[in-house]
Amino acid sequence: MMAAALKIMQRIDGLAKISDEPGKITRTFASSAMRRANQLVAKWMRAAGMKIRMDVVGNLTGHYDGTKSDAEILLLGSHLDTVRNAGKFDGPLGVILAVACVENLRRKKIRLPFAIEVISFADEEGVRYQTAYLGSKVLAGCFDQKDLQRKDADGISMRNAIKNFGGNPARLQSARLSPNNLLGYIETHIEQGPVLEEEKCAVGIVTAIAGQTRVRTRFIGSAGHAGTTPMDLRKDALCAAAEFVLAVENLARKISGLVATVGEISAKPGASNVIPGEVHLTLDVRHKNDSVRKPACLTLEKMAFRIARRRKIRLDYEVVHETAAVNCSENFSRLLGEAVKRRQKKLIQLSSGAGHDAAIMAKITPSAMLFVRCKNGVSHHPDESVKIEDVQIAFDVMNSFLQSLAKKHEGFRNGKVIAKPSRSW
Amino acid sequence: MMAAALKIMQRIDGLAKISDEPGKITRTFASSAMRRANQLVAKWMRAAGMKIRMDVVGNLTGHYDGTKSDAEILLLGSHLDTVRNAGKFDGPLGVILAVACVENLRRKKIRLPFAIEVISFADEEGVRYQTAYLGSKVLAGCFDQKDLQRKDADGISMRNAIKNFGGNPARLQSARLSPNNLLGYIETHIEQGPVLEEEKCAVGIVTAIAGQTRVRTRFIGSAGHAGTTPMDLRKDALCAAAEFVLAVENLARKISGLVATVGEISAKPGASNVIPGEVHLTLDVRHKNDSVRKPACLTLEKMAFRIARRRKIRLDYEVVHETAAVNCSENFSRLLGEAVKRRQKKLIQLSSGAGHDAAIMAKITPSAMLFVRCKNGVSHHPDESVKIEDVQIAFDVMNSFLQSLAKKHEGFRNGKVIAKPSRSW
Repeated sequence: MMAAALKIMQRIDGLAKISDEPGKITRTFASSAMRRANQLVAKWMRAAGMKIRMDVVGNLTGHYDGTKSDAEILLLGSHLDTVRNAGKFDGPLGVILAVACVENLRRKKIRLPFAIEVISFADEEGVRYQTAYLGSKVLAGCFDQKDLQRKDADGISMRNAIKNFGGNPARLQSARLSPNNLLGYIETHIEQGPVLEEEKCAVGIVTAIAGQTRVRTRFIGSAGHAGTTPMDLRKDALCAAAEFVLAVENLARKISGLVATVGEISAKPGASNVIPGEVHLTLDVRHKNDSVRKPACLTLEKMAFRIARRRKIRLDYEVVHETAAVNCSENFSRLLGEAVKRRQKKLIQLSSGAGHDAAIMAKITPSAMLFVRCKNGVSHHPDESVKIEDVQIAFDVMNSFLQSLAKKHEGFRNGKVIAKPSRSW
Repeated sequence: MMAAALKIMQRIDGLAKISDEPGKITRTFASSAMRRANQLVAKWMRAAGMKIRMDVVGNLTGHYDGTKSDAEILLLGSHLDTVRNAGKFDGPLGVILAVACVENLRRKKIRLPFAIEVISFADEEGVRYQTAYLGSKVLAGCFDQKDLQRKDADGISMRNAIKNFGGNPARLQSARLSPNNLLGYIETHIEQGPVLEEEKCAVGIVTAIAGQTRVRTRFIGSAGHAGTTPMDLRKDALCAAAEFVLAVENLARKISGLVATVGEISAKPGASNVIPGEVHLTLDVRHKNDSVRKPACLTLEKMAFRIARRRKIRLDYEVVHETAAVNCSENFSRLLGEAVKRRQKKLIQLSSGAGHDAAIMAKITPSAMLFVRCKNGVSHHPDESVKIEDVQIAFDVMNSFLQSLAKKHEGFRNGKVIAKPSRSW
């Protein structure tokens, strides 16, 4: 009963052997490992009856014809690049599961009223050039040309990396997909969080991809001798920072769905016998509703300045990055949710705190996501782990979803139901 | 009226030009800079009528005879080595001021009923071998032979460094001073803290050198994705550490004279989008009374474990270093205090939060310290600054102290008054 999942797991293991770094999984954009990963996935795509193509930035796409030659296209996929010393599921699961779904159709000699294209994005993690979602941004036409000048750690420009990989940096604009031909984009991905595990559910539906605010702060007090400076004459930057860390935690705990994290901290001069004169820290705030995240961020900023003022120290507070929340397609999510309910008792709907290619693809086509439970919520780590039973459930859900989408297709355009379904599977 | 202070300041400037690192003041143990510093100070000692000698570890001593050839010896001094990129007063002030006092006696053709020896210690900061108070430990006979095997950053053992400097690592024990011949040890030093400046006083008397407890802690929670881990499922090591930082500050503020500092902190993995799974921090606690410091440290340890327990995270808590407080000689301090009051309205008595050679010398002879105000309490930094007016006051106080000690001398043994004074200056 788990033949499909077994094959998917074997392929995930096979892909995990392809790495830029021996003994670890590391596949960065336009690297030799990515070339070999694309070759392996292309082989699987061909075996599933797909025509393959690689675009100007290195995204690999397999095309499975629909019943008509001019059929609309449903995009499925995820990314093949990884962080350094990655787990094996983040990205590959969504690509390989999609290939398996097409293979299933092909084996059963089924053509759907729409074409399916499985995309494996060339760069989602952005490890090599600090440019996340590079692959999907090119397809969505929101790539920033300036990024071509970025250099990697070895001084190789992105422009040259794309050229060396066989892409065409001069024609990235041309790769934009035409929204008119697209039915939507569905991405299967590991949750990278602990919610499904807590809820004892194999899969869940993503309602939105959280918006994010990233802040860098610098608390500037006065360094001083730890032995000779009385407590009441101190301007300890770390004590101020510690107050802020707890204020962040406290506020986030009070607001449903908000997550806020101080992930980096450093104290200068950083000696055990010197009062910290300066502390840098980062703040990361996310919520599925921008109308919740934005005022929360303002509150935190005010709190930080209040702490600094009360302690008579200086504060630099810089919002370095802000992305809006992206709602998943309600109609696709409803169809996916119905498929989930056919396979699992509870329907878990959750927002994604992590960013995904789906957030970019949503700019040009209705997008939805299926999350798969992962062990302890661990991701971006070799311990990343997904149960074969859960993979089978995800595979079954996606097949069931494709089946019901096919039934509804004639009344389904750009993710919206425009008429009653008419056709049977 | 400030001729003496001017000369002291000029000599301090002259010594500041001698460094292992161009453009900075850095004189580490047994270095070329220390050799040149010793040569320069030896020249000044000779000019003040002193016989000089260098001992087996590189301490330079100038001897100024008393009225009798077998006279007891009063030791004055401080250290000539520095931290890296140091200020120019920490150490040299005490040596050069002492030389100036002897020079003053010599100029006035005065012999005291005791001999004076000005010691410039070869290593107090311990930069090269992480062995603080090396110079005074050898003279006090509490040097640890095992330290001879320590290697510096270039792999040179302490044994060889001493040999190359012209010392004799095999005979360090022989350098121990015989307590019977000693009257006491008086050290003038910059405060390295802000108290005298706050009190608007040039100098102050040190009542005790604080005891110290140094702790290393490791809070171990769970790393996790900052976007996908709900607040109530987190085990954020940094939030626990932040609670502890504030608990430390809070307790120290409540207990008079206690100083407690978290000077180093690091969070792992240390990425803006990852919940800190592990935080290391250092704790430094000091008080002039061990009976205050020790229970405070126990309270802090309990608090740390309480925080960890409540947050369900692990805690490693290790006391890595503990030194007892050292009381200064009451009799010397009273004499010094009387000299201060002849020159300055207020008599400030303070404990030293920083360690000093006097804490080691106190093991073999009654010791006392005169602190001199420094700007903003800054030390171990090129900005270290002392006013010439304050140096003059310190010089006057030391002269006045020597004068009254001479008067009292026959009734003064090992820092204790044993009979009424009889002689006049």
